[in-house]
Amino acid sequence: METRIRNSFDKQGLMASLNARLDSIDAGRVVISAAILPETSEQHGFAHAGLTFSLGDSAAGYSALNTMAEGAEVLTAEMKINLVAPADGTRLIATGEVIKPGRRLVVTRATVETEYPDGRRKIVAVLQGTMVPV
Amino acid sequence: METRIRNSFDKQGLMASLNARLDSIDAGRVVISAAILPETSEQHGFAHAGLTFSLGDSAAGYSALNTMAEGAEVLTAEMKINLVAPADGTRLIATGEVIKPGRRLVVTRATVETEYPDGRRKIVAVLQGTMVPV
Amino acid sequence: METRIRNSFDKQGLMASLNARLDSIDAGRVVISAAILPETSEQHGFAHAGLTFSLGDSAAGYSALNTMAEGAEVLTAEMKINLVAPADGTRLIATGEVIKPGRRLVVTRATVETEYPDGRRKIVAVLQGTMVPV
Amino acid sequence: METRIRNSFDKQGLMASLNARLDSIDAGRVVISAAILPETSEQHGFAHAGLTFSLGDSAAGYSALNTMAEGAEVLTAEMKINLVAPADGTRLIATGEVIKPGRRLVVTRATVETEYPDGRRKIVAVLQGTMVPV
Repeated sequence: METRIRNSFDKQGLMASLNARLDSIDAGRVVISAAILPETSEQHGFAHAGLTFSLGDSAAGYSALNTMAEGAEVLTAEMKINLVAPADGTRLIATGEVIKPGRRLVVTRATVETEYPDGRRKIVAVLQGTMVPV
Repeated sequence: METRIRNSFDKQGLMASLNARLDSIDAGRVVISAAILPETSEQHGFAHAGLTFSLGDSAAGYSALNTMAEGAEVLTAEMKINLVAPADGTRLIATGEVIKPGRRLVVTRATVETEYPDGRRKIVAVLQGTMVPV
Repeated sequence: METRIRNSFDKQGLMASLNARLDSIDAGRVVISAAILPETSEQHGFAHAGLTFSLGDSAAGYSALNTMAEGAEVLTAEMKINLVAPADGTRLIATGEVIKPGRRLVVTRATVETEYPDGRRKIVAVLQGTMVPV
Repeated sequence: METRIRNSFDKQGLMASLNARLDSIDAGRVVISAAILPETSEQHGFAHAGLTFSLGDSAAGYSALNTMAEGAEVLTAEMKINLVAPADGTRLIATGEVIKPGRRLVVTRATVETEYPDGRRKIVAVLQGTMVPV
């Protein structure tokens, strides 16, 4: 399963462009992170909502793929993000997990934290949405 | 107002990294588009949900900024995206509009279409969410 | 199709408890309304968000059922509501429509308006969500 | 604070119509429940999505009010619900909690479970949304 997720991740051009890294794959939990760089920032130099969404959505999607049948690929049907604090650290760390597996719909959640140089973390976004196998 | 939106857009590193272009700013409607390139795609070569979200969210955000007081900047408080078809064209075109202006909360909507080489378009995503002035 | 929707609506105990009425069923558009009564209000006497959601969700659901195969019933998989103004009129009127039909997922939208005694209307909520056939 | 929440709850006509009960108020957690009755059901006799939403939204709202300044009332700005299983028990139990307090926006989450006569519970819905003080 880890191989399958890594293969899919490595084929996503956007993940490479965002300098995203697949940190860990555990039963029901996938962690993806990226440095916050000028090229992935918004006008104040904080992580852009598009980066925060992309990491959270991917972490949620791969946590869902983890529960799907061999050979399936995963698509986001819908995703809701609440941005709760400025992403003013140096990294973003997204943790995705499955709330409810299913044959047709998998409901997922993700939390995105920003990490400061001293290792402290702060939650910047929470996501909730639906993944479908294709 | 157009100058203010263009200045903000130009300071967003992620928009440049995604090759996004601010196409038009009309009263209550902002259009942002980008080519679908390998570096902004998912594993099937279609536009990544992260790209689709980023363009739709930015178009919605700038349509909201259009209604805000001089000097304000705009932040996404929350955004919901439904991905309704594969983004299998060569471009993505996001149109944002304001559903309900407000002093503290601006409710917005965006539609993202994919465009084919022959000029035909298909809706790939709809977004609905809340912008706040900061 | 109208018979099928009316039959389903009439079996929903909650719709009767909320005094909801199925006003019209057109291709792709379903309208459901209800008086705003003390027993469906919140603490200020305006329509409760639960009433607004219930009418909008049902109007969206039946607009989706309209596109589904004979014999199917419709379930809400997920729904997002933005409440944009106080529901301070005497009636609520919800209009549901299909954004994207599909065999497995139907993406819908609804607008809920409040109506004043003089017939004027104001938008109080917008909804966007996914219906599934069962 | 408990008195303030109970007073607000008791003034909500819809909560009484839905036979809802305010079960507990703890720091950051509010529990609201209701029997699933024919008058709050959908066409299959399960709890209507409108009931599920109403309980979850109210539990989330009161968990937010718990963090707000004296004298404030709470309004739902937006709420997203994923319905993950049929509500086929005899009761619904909604637990709301605050993800991120704030002066202008409070981000909340709720989980709704159905309870069977033997006391077993199953999650039927998860909600995520934004509350504002008024």
